[in-house]
Amino acid sequence: MKTVAAQVITPEDLLKHWQGHRALTRRVIELFPEKDFFEFSIGGMRPFAKLADELLAIGVPALKGIVNREIQPYKEEADEKLIFKAQYLEKWDEATEEINKYWQELSVEDFSETFNLFGQYEFPVIQNVLYFIDNEVHHRGQGYVYLRALNIQPPFFWER
Amino acid sequence: MKTVAAQVITPEDLLKHWQGHRALTRRVIELFPEKDFFEFSIGGMRPFAKLADELLAIGVPALKGIVNREIQPYKEEADEKLIFKAQYLEKWDEATEEINKYWQELSVEDFSETFNLFGQYEFPVIQNVLYFIDNEVHHRGQGYVYLRALNIQPPFFWER
Repeated sequence: MKTVAAQVITPEDLLKHWQGHRALTRRVIELFPEKDFFEFSIGGMRPFAKLADELLAIGVPALKGIVNREIQPYKEEADEKLIFKAQYLEKWDEATEEINKYWQELSVEDFSETFNLFGQYEFPVIQNVLYFIDNEVHHRGQGYVYLRALNIQPPFFWER
Repeated sequence: MKTVAAQVITPEDLLKHWQGHRALTRRVIELFPEKDFFEFSIGGMRPFAKLADELLAIGVPALKGIVNREIQPYKEEADEKLIFKAQYLEKWDEATEEINKYWQELSVEDFSETFNLFGQYEFPVIQNVLYFIDNEVHHRGQGYVYLRALNIQPPFFWER
């Protein structure tokens, strides 16, 4: 049996934290005009649809890999290409449910175990999960600038 | 005595995580041309110097307040106004040391206690700390777009 060191956040609270961020990202997707979601960009960066592709390619597939200890390469292209914002929102909501489901299968001990995510990122699970969240916050910050540049007021950052 | 629920990250790892982000933000500050650091903006948003003001006004003052259980209002104006990027970098490094110092005074139990940060944000300490980090990642994401728009390659996101 492993000793679990005294630690500072429960799995339940971490899930709530992540899903709070995901809810905010969903609002950012919603706020983009249809065309700009797929096309607007600054400084040669990806449009927000491409960033959403990345976030969708990480969330569920990564968590599923972790839970099943199954190493699958990272794959950004979805099986069916999404061409409307409404499809992204639908996928987003499906992912919300899937993440909740897989999360229940993680034990506290799992978080300190090392997993080679996508066959590329060999870190303790907690670090991988924090990375998913940070990466989402980072790209969403980019989305906020796109919205402002489009003269659209982004949601308050603390609204989750 | 309180029961500490089974949790998933140690205070040491959370500090390392935060300081890793702070090191990355420092690199973003470094990459801005002097003038653009204070002036460049997109869509009416704050220039990166103003965002750095906010991050400096949160980090040490917030942590000091938490450690001393001393409620001080949020105050973004520094006692002396910083007018060169080099001054920001110096302040940043001082803050790095101060954060390390104050962090040592937090016990594991402190993270689940509620504190009314800046007299405005009454949440468990862990939530306040996660907020500092998220807020920094969010604004730094904004900085990445500014750099790209200035035709400057930002650091890799995973370099901490």
